[in-house]
Amino acid sequence: MLTMGVDIGSTASKAVILEDGSRIVAKRVVPVGTGTRGPREVYESTLAAAGVRGPEISRVVATGYGRMNFEMADRELSEVSCHGRGVRFLLPDVRTVIDIGGQDAKALLLDERGNLDNFIMNDKCAAGTGRFLEAMARVLDVAVEEMGELSERSERPVSISSTCAVFAESEVISRLANGERIEDIVAGIHTSVAKKVSGLAIRMGYRPRVAMSGGVARNRGIVRAMERELGCGITVPEDCQLAGAIGAALFAYSDMEKIVNGR
Amino acid sequence: MLTMGVDIGSTASKAVILEDGSRIVAKRVVPVGTGTRGPREVYESTLAAAGVRGPEISRVVATGYGRMNFEMADRELSEVSCHGRGVRFLLPDVRTVIDIGGQDAKALLLDERGNLDNFIMNDKCAAGTGRFLEAMARVLDVAVEEMGELSERSERPVSISSTCAVFAESEVISRLANGERIEDIVAGIHTSVAKKVSGLAIRMGYRPRVAMSGGVARNRGIVRAMERELGCGITVPEDCQLAGAIGAALFAYSDMEKIVNGR
Ligand code: SF4
Repeated sequence: MLTMGVDIGSTASKAVILEDGSRIVAKRVVPVGTGTRGPREVYESTLAAAGVRGPEISRVVATGYGRMNFEMADRELSEVSCHGRGVRFLLPDVRTVIDIGGQDAKALLLDERGNLDNFIMNDKCAAGTGRFLEAMARVLDVAVEEMGELSERSERPVSISSTCAVFAESEVISRLANGERIEDIVAGIHTSVAKKVSGLAIRMGYRPRVAMSGGVARNRGIVRAMERELGCGITVPEDCQLAGAIGAALFAYSDMEKIVNGR
Repeated sequence: MLTMGVDIGSTASKAVILEDGSRIVAKRVVPVGTGTRGPREVYESTLAAAGVRGPEISRVVATGYGRMNFEMADRELSEVSCHGRGVRFLLPDVRTVIDIGGQDAKALLLDERGNLDNFIMNDKCAAGTGRFLEAMARVLDVAVEEMGELSERSERPVSISSTCAVFAESEVISRLANGERIEDIVAGIHTSVAKKVSGLAIRMGYRPRVAMSGGVARNRGIVRAMERELGCGITVPEDCQLAGAIGAALFAYSDMEKIVNGR
C-alpha cells in the first residue's frame, strides 16, 4: 500500500511516498513553497519518481504552513505532529526535535514511545528563523546555501548584539562597512540564530538525543552553533528536510490501517 | 545666560538655545543623525540662528542615542530624563509622555511636579518604532512625511496581522499585490504601530494629560491611532521634535544655577 506525505512550507515543498508505512519509495524537494507552482510540482514529480499515478496512492496527508491551500490532500495535519513522527522514523531514539523553518522555529519533546510530550514555538518574531538567515544572506550578497561552509572558515566570529532581525541587519551592514570578513559575520549570524532557538529548547526542557530537522538543519554552521549553545551533540538525519513529509505519509498509513481494519 | 541642548537621534539632530532657562532663542533640526554631519551642523546652525559664538554658551548638554559621540557637550544625559523635562516645559500639566523614536519607543510617567515616576521602553524590537515606519514607507514607495496625510484619506484601513516588522513587510507587499489602496495600507500600518506603543503605556499605567513627542508625533495618523487605542486625547506640542533638546538645555541651565550658587 502506498501513502504520500506532502509538506508545504513557506520556502520549499517536500513530498514522500511510503510503501506500507515503512519504506521510502520516492522523495522530492522543490525549492518554492506555498502560493507558487511548488506544491503541484512536488506532487507530480514524486509520483513520477515512484512511477505511479495519483489514484494508486491510497491516501495523501498534507502538512506545513501552506497545507490548507493544497487541494490534493485527503487530510491536513499540523507540522508539530508530523515533524516529531518523521524524525522518529529516521532516528528512533530521538527525544528532542528542533526545527528551524522558513518563518518559525520550534522545539518538540517526545516521550519514550515517540508521542509528543511538550512543544514550544516561535512564529511571531523573525529572529531565529530561516527568514532572518535569508535577509542576512541578501545583505551579504551570498547564497543561503553557502552560509554553512562560509562560517566554517571563520577565524574570529563577530558578535551581533541586536536580537531583532531588523536591527541586526543594520549591524551587519555596518560590520561590512568596517571591513569585517564575511566568514566572521556569517559565523556571528549563526550564533545569533542559535541563541534565540536554543532559548526555546531550554525553556521547554530538552532531553537527549537531540535532532534537528527542516531545511536550515543542512547548514552545518547553525548546527555547530546550536551544539555550543545547548552543550550537547545534535544529530541531523540525512533526509532532515523531509521529516514533515515522512511524518505526514506515516499518518496517512495509520489512517488507512484504521479504515481497512474498520477501527 | 545662554544654555544649549543637543539631541542626537538615529535619524535626526536637534538643538535648542535657551535664555535663562525660560525662553527659546534659537532651534534647529537637521534630518540626519549620529555618525553623519548632522550633529556638527545642527550645533553650528543653531549658534548662527542665535547670532552667537560657541564660547557665549554657558553650558551644553547632549542627549539622544548618539550623545556619546558628540564632543561639544559639557555633559550627557539620558533621553528619558530630557524628554520628560522638555515636554513639561512645553505643556506644564502633562503627566504621560509617549515618544516614538527612530529605533525605540518609550512611555514616561511624570508626577505632579514633573519628576519621573516610572518609565517603560522598547529598544529591542523594531516593531512600533520609526524604523518600522521607514521600512514600510520604502516598500510602499512613499515618503515617511507623507504617511500621515495619506492615512487620513483611508476609507477602509487594512488590518496587518503580523506584529513583527519583518513579517509585516511581507504582509504589506502581498496587500499591495492584491491591489489594496496605499491609503488603506498606511492606515493599517499606523494602527499596528499604535497597538504596539500603546501597549507600553498601558503596561506602565498612563495618566492624563497624555502628550506625544519625537519626530513621529508629527504624523497625525499615528497620533489618531494612538488616541483610538488609548481611548483618550493626546496633545502634540508644536515643537514636539525638540522636546529632548529643550530638556537638555534646561538641565544645562540647572547645572549652571548650581555652579553659580555654589550648590
Ligand atoms: S524583534 Fe525584530 S524580528 Fe523580532 S518581532 Fe520585533 S521586529 Fe520582528
